[in-house]
Formats: sequence, structure tokens, C-alpha cells
Amino acid sequence: MSPAPTASAAPDEASAASDDSRPGRARRDAEATKAAIIRACRYLLARHAHTDITLKDVAERAGVSAPLILKYFGNKDALFSQVMNFEADVETLLDAPLEDLGRHMVRHLLTGQSERGTDPILRIVFAPLHGEQGDILRANFRAQVSDRLAERLRGPDSGLRAELAVSLLLGLGVMYGIARGPHVRSAPVEDVVERYGPAVQEQLTPGTLAG
Amino acid sequence: MSPAPTASAAPDEASAASDDSRPGRARRDAEATKAAIIRACRYLLARHAHTDITLKDVAERAGVSAPLILKYFGNKDALFSQVMNFEADVETLLDAPLEDLGRHMVRHLLTGQSERGTDPILRIVFAPLHGEQGDILRANFRAQVSDRLAERLRGPDSGLRAELAVSLLLGLGVMYGIARGPHVRSAPVEDVVERYGPAVQEQLTPGTLAG
Repeated sequence: MSPAPTASAAPDEASAASDDSRPGRARRDAEATKAAIIRACRYLLARHAHTDITLKDVAERAGVSAPLILKYFGNKDALFSQVMNFEADVETLLDAPLEDLGRHMVRHLLTGQSERGTDPILRIVFAPLHGEQGDILRANFRAQVSDRLAERLRGPDSGLRAELAVSLLLGLGVMYGIARGPHVRSAPVEDVVERYGPAVQEQLTPGTLAG
Repeated sequence: MSPAPTASAAPDEASAASDDSRPGRARRDAEATKAAIIRACRYLLARHAHTDITLKDVAERAGVSAPLILKYFGNKDALFSQVMNFEADVETLLDAPLEDLGRHMVRHLLTGQSERGTDPILRIVFAPLHGEQGDILRANFRAQVSDRLAERLRGPDSGLRAELAVSLLLGLGVMYGIARGPHVRSAPVEDVVERYGPAVQEQLTPGTLAG
């Protein structure tokens, strides 16, 4: 049996592929490695056309081998479809009662941005880079984000209100993660939640703000 | 003297370069051609890294010759710096009294998107594609958009409030122009202005919404 691997923030192939006697640890390592691969893929898809990115590029960026990516995801297209899918992210984004959903979504987005440098929905902005794949990204976004939120809403114009609530989140993501606004980035998360959350909530449950 | 050119929606080199006896017309043609070149350049910068775009690409997309671009803009770098500058766009975006600025900005953005397919500030989202040029884009955005708006605001935290107001606009631009939300795109402009404008205004002049 190999000695216990040393703790490492950056998951690597060795720990993920090791014949670890503690299955919980091995599973966590595998999840961390998969997450690193997804992160690397997102990073590249924000900067290069889908067709220009090779498996080797993703492997290098993630600090793993290309065969390990194949082991986890099957092939490049399967990896990319996973990155172009919003379902897992939206699960946690929408995980709050409707009456507190505005603040929850703002908080969830800011926490992801500040703690992990990730955003649950922001990658839709890179759709223009990816030609037909961009259309798949748009269709996923509509079905898995906007329409999914609209299903939660009561009252008229739920489709429009959901799109406007999502607009607010997208804009905050752009300001934080892309424009890198210094005030938004340095303000306490709860301060921004209190300032911005009510505007999101007003789209979800209109009238509660003014009433 | 050449016969009067036929009216054309697409500006071309011939009309822009023609020795027209009516200076007003010639000037308008030149402006239309310059606008078409800027538009082509923006289109390409949303899809390709700055370094991969040639003058020929821009010329082809704009339907003009590369020498005409040089005549109007000097060189590729000068053209790109103009596209990476927000000053002219922000002039009209901010052209309203503070108490009506929220609705005005939303209306201005939606009108540009629906009538001309352009957005005054959305191109900041493509900063990640452009390496060091992306940093210039970010610096311009901060100075010419967020800080410029903050200067108009009274009361505490004007920098943060300006960034949050700009976030709202960015998000609406992403939803309309990139995600192509069907509800936002089909709603009457004034309907969206009434729903979304107050949230922008609340950042500009806090308390007027609830009060």
C-alpha cells in the first residue's frame, strides 16, 4: 500500500487515480479533479472558440493528463456538453423559498465569485464565440435557467419577469467577474445582497418591495 | 459630375469616397461607412481574439476596402482603440436628468438593441478574449462608464451604487443581445422600461422607489 498522499489544494492525477484504501477520500479526490477539469474547460471556453480548444489544452490548464479527462468524461464533446449545461448550477441557485429567492440568488452568485471564482450562469456571455455550440448554450440557458425560474413564479408575465430577474444576476456576474468593478468586489457580500437582492425579488414577487 | 447615387442602406466605399457635390450627403455617407466599420470590428471582437483579427477581416465584414479603413482610422490599432473606448456611447447613455436617468438608460439600451443591434456598453463582456487589450477595455469601462456615472450621484457609496446600476444595464444587454431572451425581446420597450428602470433608479437615487 502506498503511503497516504500529502494534502494538496490542487488535485492531481496521482491522487485521483491512486488505489486509496479510504474510498471516501478517493471519491473526494476524483470529484476535485473533475471540478478542476470543468473549471479549466470553462476558462478556455471564455477565451477561445470551441473548435480551437484541444483536449491537451484542457489537460494542461487543469494540470492532469488527457487520458484522465477521457476516463472521467468519455470524450471532448461530452466534456463540453457538460460545461454548456446549467442544470447542476441552477439546482443550488434556486434552492430557497420564493419569498427569499432574490437575496439568496445574489448571495449565492457573490459567494461563488468571491470564494471560488466561479459563477453559476455567467458563461452564457461567451455564446457568440462558439457558433452552433453557442445556440445549444442559449437553448440550455433558456430551458434550464430562465424557464425553470419562470415555473416558480405566480401571476402574469412570469416569463418576462424571470428573464429580468436573471438579467440582474447576469449583470452582477459581469461586473464582478469580467469588468472587475472594484467597489462591488470590495463590498461585504451582505451589503450587496441588501442593495441588489430587493430588485431581483421585485421581479419574482412584484409589489412586495413598494408595499 | 456623377449621377446621384441611389439610396442604399448599406454604406459602401463608392458612396463614401464619391466626389459628391452635396457636402452634407457626402459627410453622412462617410459617417455611415465609419459606423459600419466600427460595427464590423465590434462583431469580430466579440468572436475572435484581438490578435487574430486582420484589417482584411474587418474590411470584408464591413463591405469596404482595407485602404478605406486606413483612410478613416489610420491603422488597425487606432481602429481597435476607438472600439475599446466608451466615451461617445456614454455621452448619450447618460444624457438625462438624474431623477429620470434610470428609465432613460434602460430605454436607450433597449432602443439600440432593437433598432440597430448595438449596445453602448455590452462589449466589456468580451474582455477575457483580448489579453492585455482586455485590461485596457476594463480600465476604459471603469473610468468612462462606472466612474463617470458615480460622479453624477449624491450621497454615500456612490461608487458602489454606480457599479450596481451599470450591472443592471449589463445584464439586460446580455439577456437581450447574447442570451436572446424571447420575452425581453418581444415585450414593448416601454413595458420593460417600467419594470426594470425603477431598479436602476433605486441605485441612483436610493429611497425614492420605496418612499
